[in-house]
Amino acid sequence: MRDVYVIGVGLHPFGRFGDKDVIEIGREAVVAALEDSGVAWKDVESAYCGTVFAGPMAGNKVLARVGLTGLPIMNLENACASGGSALRLAFQDVASGFCDIALAFGFEKMPRGFIAGNPNDWFATMGMAVNPQYFALNARRHMADYGTTEDHLVRVSVKNHRNGALNPYAMYRKVMSYEEIANSTMVNDPLRLLMLCAPNEGGAAVVVASREAAKRYTTRLIRLASVVLKSPLYGTAEVPYIAVSSQVEAPSVTRTASEAAYEAAGIGPGDLDLVELQDTDSAAEIIYSEELGLCGRGEGARLLDDGATEIGGRLPVNPSGGLLSKGEPLGASALGQVAEVVWQLRGEAGARQVSDARVGLTHVYGALGNCAVSILQC
Amino acid sequence: MRDVYVIGVGLHPFGRFGDKDVIEIGREAVVAALEDSGVAWKDVESAYCGTVFAGPMAGNKVLARVGLTGLPIMNLENACASGGSALRLAFQDVASGFCDIALAFGFEKMPRGFIAGNPNDWFATMGMAVNPQYFALNARRHMADYGTTEDHLVRVSVKNHRNGALNPYAMYRKVMSYEEIANSTMVNDPLRLLMLCAPNEGGAAVVVASREAAKRYTTRLIRLASVVLKSPLYGTAEVPYIAVSSQVEAPSVTRTASEAAYEAAGIGPGDLDLVELQDTDSAAEIIYSEELGLCGRGEGARLLDDGATEIGGRLPVNPSGGLLSKGEPLGASALGQVAEVVWQLRGEAGARQVSDARVGLTHVYGALGNCAVSILQC
Repeated sequence: MRDVYVIGVGLHPFGRFGDKDVIEIGREAVVAALEDSGVAWKDVESAYCGTVFAGPMAGNKVLARVGLTGLPIMNLENACASGGSALRLAFQDVASGFCDIALAFGFEKMPRGFIAGNPNDWFATMGMAVNPQYFALNARRHMADYGTTEDHLVRVSVKNHRNGALNPYAMYRKVMSYEEIANSTMVNDPLRLLMLCAPNEGGAAVVVASREAAKRYTTRLIRLASVVLKSPLYGTAEVPYIAVSSQVEAPSVTRTASEAAYEAAGIGPGDLDLVELQDTDSAAEIIYSEELGLCGRGEGARLLDDGATEIGGRLPVNPSGGLLSKGEPLGASALGQVAEVVWQLRGEAGARQVSDARVGLTHVYGALGNCAVSILQC
Repeated sequence: MRDVYVIGVGLHPFGRFGDKDVIEIGREAVVAALEDSGVAWKDVESAYCGTVFAGPMAGNKVLARVGLTGLPIMNLENACASGGSALRLAFQDVASGFCDIALAFGFEKMPRGFIAGNPNDWFATMGMAVNPQYFALNARRHMADYGTTEDHLVRVSVKNHRNGALNPYAMYRKVMSYEEIANSTMVNDPLRLLMLCAPNEGGAAVVVASREAAKRYTTRLIRLASVVLKSPLYGTAEVPYIAVSSQVEAPSVTRTASEAAYEAAGIGPGDLDLVELQDTDSAAEIIYSEELGLCGRGEGARLLDDGATEIGGRLPVNPSGGLLSKGEPLGASALGQVAEVVWQLRGEAGARQVSDARVGLTHVYGALGNCAVSILQC
């Protein structure tokens, strides 16, 4: 296999954009990534699109506005892991030598409110119709097992909103006080409104290339050391992951995917300088920190207590503001994380720059247990 | 790149199955392909699912019923080319050495009636809301340019229904007389109801493997010599391919995709023993025969006149009965073609067996111009 490099990233801001066409949102992200890379559109050899809500053949519609070049276009739908899945395929294409330059892109214009499950699923039948319900079970379980407190849940959100206030692509872009978060509407105990990420709109794109091709466009080589997609090893898989994550002996998919990504990259959690992970809610950041091996089981809240996950800390988590500040346009989410890591590794992250960042990890986890993890290195 | 082999194929019959769950339809196809291959499910290393109508994460739902093994699962939506796109990715996975055994599968439970376009597309705004309208324009154009007649359109359908009557997986499974077809309801002039394929339900799955892995399961090696996916080089691409196909100098995507597939396989149209192509309507079989290089431009109807495309002819086209007899469950369609070619190359096609078949081609073409072509060889 050949080494693969990220040579361009582009975002359409995450937020709400009125009547703006979702295809245009995607197009702007793609064009931004192409401009960032310096690659001419005609030289992109294959394209992988991740989206859940943009309708049939949405990737083709976006790329038709960039220009018809005949390249193969694959439209993927892998829930929250859609963008990560697109990146995995672009990575494979280049790593294997099928092509030299590939594009992964994703975009979304999501309905407002929380996503309801399929009413035919037993989960929904039992009254667990929307995500915050099982997010809350996860949180309560972690609190019961490891002493995580409501104070921790508030402070994750304070941190991520503080970071996101520095990110021009984030939806909220404002500092939220401890009191605002702690007093926001209770959604599912213990999770309050400002401890939950918002489904929203946005786009992201990433151009990857072989070493030889990359060197034609840049001298700042950022290696995409690994991208891994996994499905779960246990559970019912027709319903989302539930509160057993920190309890059962069978490893969670975040653990199996990240272990595979570390192994493929030859990089361990101790080598990481920053992490962008799936903080769909405040408790998720704590739980996934453990499952990604950033700390031991039950020690996620301690990372927060120690200040390790702050931008100035030992291992910054979600310096972009995470999903809590950016919102989560499903297809764009993972690729937005990759853009953040690339900017951090290039030293282009402005006021939220992590000093001396050389290795970063991204993580998304989706419904039915698809999980994508990537590791980047400069 | 490594050679790739098809070691198992499986179908769920194409047709209408009442309240039967689409996930169960998919599961039965996957299990049939696994049984045909002899591969244990735990040894499949990656899975690519093509479906348009089965809803979010449908591939994960199907495979959860087969067993949770943690493998990466990609859900693809590429319109009529969805199954061909899944096969392309499984092929790449094995050819590149990312894995030794991969699964491509697709399934569908489509709404009745013809598919209406997006009302925001100018095509629909202009009154071109459903497929048979532009199929009919293609047909009329070919008739005007090359002397193709309504008699030819009837006879394509007679041939394919005669073949499909011999196929236990086909929807209609019955011979249709010349008169029945010629007198069936006019849908869009010149295309009558029995000259159009029916959207329906069904499933198909294909197991591919490296040479080394394949030899553990079978001595009858059928090589998947190439799989190519292309998007169009001209047109508006937000609307389907229209009647200009046989006129403009820019090549159609069926031509560019098939030329790439021939080149990658080292096999030309003159080497083919049978073809399964996208006969969404009778005229399409004639037009695509030309675009696949089976004959010169404008000579498609002559192939029919010469009897070349009959099962006993020089180059049988759609010996399975094609979409006209089988119907078109989008995600399953291309993989159903591959199953037919594999059975033909193995000599397992029963009453519709093409004698001494050694090389076959499959072709699907989808909305917005995605086209997938594969070539198989024993």
